[in-house]
Amino acid sequence: MIEHVKFDEKGLVPAIAQDAETGEVLMMAWMNDEALRLTGEKMVAHYYSRSRKKLWLKGETSGNIQKVQEIRLDCDGDTILLKVTQAGGACHEGYRSCFFRKWANGSWAVDGKKIFDPDKIYGHKK
Amino acid sequence: MIEHVKFDEKGLVPAIAQDAETGEVLMMAWMNDEALRLTGEKMVAHYYSRSRKKLWLKGETSGNIQKVQEIRLDCDGDTILLKVTQAGGACHEGYRSCFFRKWANGSWAVDGKKIFDPDKIYGHKK
Repeated sequence: MIEHVKFDEKGLVPAIAQDAETGEVLMMAWMNDEALRLTGEKMVAHYYSRSRKKLWLKGETSGNIQKVQEIRLDCDGDTILLKVTQAGGACHEGYRSCFFRKWANGSWAVDGKKIFDPDKIYGHKK
Repeated sequence: MIEHVKFDEKGLVPAIAQDAETGEVLMMAWMNDEALRLTGEKMVAHYYSRSRKKLWLKGETSGNIQKVQEIRLDCDGDTILLKVTQAGGACHEGYRSCFFRKWANGSWAVDGKKIFDPDKIYGHKK
């Protein structure tokens, strides 16, 4: 699996998570080889947190895990697409999708609804 | 628009293109500030080609342009999502989506159908 994927100079590859049922694009994060291998083995999304510099099981704190239904690779071998069943919301700000802002009339307007309170789940302001 | 987007150390931001009608994820490419500005102005997808090191109007050679219906930004301000109407196929290998390979039984199996012949459109092997 790993050997066909072109990781960048930092050893990372972007991974898009898409809701397997609705098609909604939920988030984009990064994987290193370990994250991709574990995602393939366990069929639960693992990423690499660039800010925390470590492997990140999505949902390890919030419980909002992503069960992986499909793993896809693009033509250039340098982007992963996961089709997932998302528990709760994907976004640490409390939205279903991280893409809750839309360019409209000269500003990035929020057009998503919060579905959970991040303060309650993470215990602090993110 | 540009001032809310966090470009990386190379001045780029990843941009996901999704079919506005079917929800299919078509491709992921990169934008610099000029590509994003032009995409917003003209509502036709522009990217920055890292291999050719220049602005890239998607479809300039193939005619497979992407009319942009929505421009979305993620929570961290570092990933763009375009909802587009795709002419022809998004992939330079002749597929509708660049994500035509799926991990199955230990290999990346092609499960997309070619919808055009890239040799005819680009005039050479890609």
